[in-house]
Amino acid sequence: MSKITVSDYLIQELSKLGIKDFFGLPGDYNFNILGSIENNPDTNWIGCTNELNAGYAADGYARINGYGALITTYGVGELSAINAVAGSFAENIPVFKIVGVPATKYIEQNTLLHHNFSNPDYFAFQRAYANVVEATAFLDCKNAKKEIDRLLQIFVREKKPVYIAIPVDICKMEIENNPEIEQPVSNQKNLTKAAEHALNLIKTSDFPVILADVLAKRFNATDEMKKFADTSGLPLCTMLMGKSLIDEDNEMYLGTYLGSYDNLYAYKYVNNSDCVISIGTIISDLNTFSFDIKFDPSQYINIQGTYTIIENKKYENVLMKDILAVLCEKIEKRDIVIETEKRGFEKTEQPDNKKLTADYIYPRLQEFFKPGDIIFSETGLTKFGIAPMSLPKDCILNNQVLWGSIGWATPAAFGAAVADKTRRVVLLTGEGAHQLTAQEVSTIMRHNLKMIIIVLNNSGYTIERILSDNPMDKYNDIAKWNYSKLPSVFNGEYWSAQAYTDSDLDEILKQTETEQKNRLCYIEVFTEIMDVPYLTKRVVKKLRNQDKTFVCQIK
Amino acid sequence: MSKITVSDYLIQELSKLGIKDFFGLPGDYNFNILGSIENNPDTNWIGCTNELNAGYAADGYARINGYGALITTYGVGELSAINAVAGSFAENIPVFKIVGVPATKYIEQNTLLHHNFSNPDYFAFQRAYANVVEATAFLDCKNAKKEIDRLLQIFVREKKPVYIAIPVDICKMEIENNPEIEQPVSNQKNLTKAAEHALNLIKTSDFPVILADVLAKRFNATDEMKKFADTSGLPLCTMLMGKSLIDEDNEMYLGTYLGSYDNLYAYKYVNNSDCVISIGTIISDLNTFSFDIKFDPSQYINIQGTYTIIENKKYENVLMKDILAVLCEKIEKRDIVIETEKRGFEKTEQPDNKKLTADYIYPRLQEFFKPGDIIFSETGLTKFGIAPMSLPKDCILNNQVLWGSIGWATPAAFGAAVADKTRRVVLLTGEGAHQLTAQEVSTIMRHNLKMIIIVLNNSGYTIERILSDNPMDKYNDIAKWNYSKLPSVFNGEYWSAQAYTDSDLDEILKQTETEQKNRLCYIEVFTEIMDVPYLTKRVVKKLRNQDKTFVCQIK
Repeated sequence: MSKITVSDYLIQELSKLGIKDFFGLPGDYNFNILGSIENNPDTNWIGCTNELNAGYAADGYARINGYGALITTYGVGELSAINAVAGSFAENIPVFKIVGVPATKYIEQNTLLHHNFSNPDYFAFQRAYANVVEATAFLDCKNAKKEIDRLLQIFVREKKPVYIAIPVDICKMEIENNPEIEQPVSNQKNLTKAAEHALNLIKTSDFPVILADVLAKRFNATDEMKKFADTSGLPLCTMLMGKSLIDEDNEMYLGTYLGSYDNLYAYKYVNNSDCVISIGTIISDLNTFSFDIKFDPSQYINIQGTYTIIENKKYENVLMKDILAVLCEKIEKRDIVIETEKRGFEKTEQPDNKKLTADYIYPRLQEFFKPGDIIFSETGLTKFGIAPMSLPKDCILNNQVLWGSIGWATPAAFGAAVADKTRRVVLLTGEGAHQLTAQEVSTIMRHNLKMIIIVLNNSGYTIERILSDNPMDKYNDIAKWNYSKLPSVFNGEYWSAQAYTDSDLDEILKQTETEQKNRLCYIEVFTEIMDVPYLTKRVVKKLRNQDKTFVCQIK
Repeated sequence: MSKITVSDYLIQELSKLGIKDFFGLPGDYNFNILGSIENNPDTNWIGCTNELNAGYAADGYARINGYGALITTYGVGELSAINAVAGSFAENIPVFKIVGVPATKYIEQNTLLHHNFSNPDYFAFQRAYANVVEATAFLDCKNAKKEIDRLLQIFVREKKPVYIAIPVDICKMEIENNPEIEQPVSNQKNLTKAAEHALNLIKTSDFPVILADVLAKRFNATDEMKKFADTSGLPLCTMLMGKSLIDEDNEMYLGTYLGSYDNLYAYKYVNNSDCVISIGTIISDLNTFSFDIKFDPSQYINIQGTYTIIENKKYENVLMKDILAVLCEKIEKRDIVIETEKRGFEKTEQPDNKKLTADYIYPRLQEFFKPGDIIFSETGLTKFGIAPMSLPKDCILNNQVLWGSIGWATPAAFGAAVADKTRRVVLLTGEGAHQLTAQEVSTIMRHNLKMIIIVLNNSGYTIERILSDNPMDKYNDIAKWNYSKLPSVFNGEYWSAQAYTDSDLDEILKQTETEQKNRLCYIEVFTEIMDVPYLTKRVVKKLRNQDKTFVCQIK
């Protein structure tokens, strides 16, 4: 059996999962790990401007690539990144979090090295991380190989972040190069039972429907889901987080579930169904338009990544891909006809030098997007702007509807652009959110990535103004920036522009088509302070009438 | 008894401690807390560009003001700030961390709201924080008043961060406005015994010496320490973190402890003493120049914030101020004469258009600094550049020698400038560290703070290059920025300049004297990639010969 060092082994195994690019920052405790990346011909180091941004970039990379990895130094580095990793955990994005820590002997002696507390506590940060990842490990000379294999197995099975701490000396320790990582498999008995139960329920129901969501993508079961839809002949609807999973021209596609705020045909179809087959759904406040959904997925068929619940009976250890495959084999095709209304925005009218509003921006963007685009929509207004849109074939829309950490989208879009250099990557962000992580634009330019960055400048945190009792509360103001000048501080090719009117935006988007072939396009779009997408207006209006403790203050 | 709402009460009590400015970001779960700040005539809201920066700013504010506070939203906000709060914990900076969380009923029902995991866990972030603060509380309708009082008491006594989570409904709940916060007091018996023990030890020793460090400042005992030095007639030395606590013209001042790398008179004096009276020392790797110190403070007299250890016997519950006061009363003055060598850099020679190096920059900065300046020195090279400097009277030097989180200094200097608008605030940062948090320059300009920002541009993480086996490892390169253009992206008055030669720097610093009266001065200073202060060279040379697992990789 050949030998290999611990950090070489870890990087080798992550590389086998398809992780070619590792995001993070160097620090004196992680040099050995970075050395393993430099020495492995299949892997690259992508240095970012700070650890939170690196964590977001790894998240964006994993959304496109399937898996991602993040490397920081001890204490200061890992804690700076923890919100990004927690977000990956919430949204089921497999990011392998690696931290280089001081040498074993200093840990054993509890020596007060930098990046620790005056009463040293070498395991404090692992304990902090244990609350926001699926599993953690702290390597020592005895457990290293076994713990790496254990974490890899959990990582592949649960598609969620795991955390590993490697002391500098353990990195260089040799272990046997024989990966013992079991591939996840379903419990056959439970699988058979669950499939039978599901098939019976579908068979005896009058109006079955498929409700598809983002976890189908996370668990790499999109193809099986689509095949199940085709084989069964059932109509299907996607939730907001799962938007773009189904091509709009699929004749059984009901469109995006927008609660009772829009696309009422889908709303009624799904809520009147007597058998909703939920595939990878997340029933959170914003994904359901404030719980505007009339059933609990588990009362029908709720297929999750590693288990299925049918009529409130849970079948453990049933993988999403496996049960969908069995259902595809055994399902009888139904002959259902749905109304295929026109969905999406109507074609925009000729621009006329009018001040820009959401009512023009999003319909115009719908025309701008093209097949295969990777779109990142920041938390705030843009997700509701995009929600009613009809997206071109094969687009990948990314949002963070559950975790909702503002600032995520800029570095995450960067990570996605690293993962797939063949597609156009379009970032749509509000300017308030952009400020949190804007320095990552320098890394985008450093790597000469020809992204399109669209910054909506509405003079502050407009989504917060809408939710607050007093929209003009000072705390929703932000520092003024000349956003379109930002790329000039960095090094690399770019084209920037500012749009105040519909005519500006129309012209700029036309020019972007060609500019983007050669350089980063950075577009600042101005709207009035309280201008919001119509869907935001409708949702907030209802929320404010209903229950103010829900998202905002009570009087 | 008058009634008051929970969030009004918390803000009122923090205001009584002298906290007038609250740093953070708004979020839909913390509006009520921000409302309490807006409604209190004594308090201001200082919105920052992101939560980590806000945490650093609160830390910098507390370093100058005595106490600070940080407010974020739930989950995403609080986790983004956790590294800053952990740094405040490590360095004993009292920052009160406040987070607005969802309403009680949603917590009780475990509803899946945004900023949570798909299996909601409302207490996950409190548990994460429990590892990096002195105490935590999660308010509910029963415990609110009691828990606020408990945390305030710990906060005042330990001078360390505490964490409080307040649901939106609890903010508006009314409680009695009768603060029950006991002021910290010493255990009189222990105090008397410890003082006697200390006085005996000092009396019977031949070469007693005072070793002063930063915790004397944190525990607000600098005056008592100085008085003790005067009353006892003992010589005193400061450690790196405590540099600037003692005015250089004090005739009993031995200067800064620089290990055996410089100021050998102090090194020998302290290490040859038979009774070192340590006041608030932190014996960490970098503060001791890699443990280049020959004794354990507890073997003599080790006075810490809330306890004292003498000859390895611990006296609990003895406050630093109290024991110093007793010692002042009872100590017999000695008549000791020390060599008062010239300390600090020699006067710079006439500049001569030579490329800039550390050998010119730091001596020239010594001449630039003036009495009363607040100086922030970022982790990396600058702390070793400043260490041998002779600082003008009444300067306050701030560094983060223990926690060492790069990026800290830019927002922390901003926080300090908010805390004291009467002094000049000078920030000295490497460009690698500056990238992590550079957007906070926009907040500095938004508040029209006339700071001086000096960015050392040496093309990457030079401190890491010095520590790494291969200085040209690609992971120590960073994105190129045109730093001096950065303020042009933001809104406000500034003057920026670039220095390549000694003559440039000399001219620029002269002009800064006048420009700074009216606006932010942003100065970019270029050096060669491997140019470092002489003290860094000496320390790293020894470390590399000694024990490579200490800070860097082993082969």
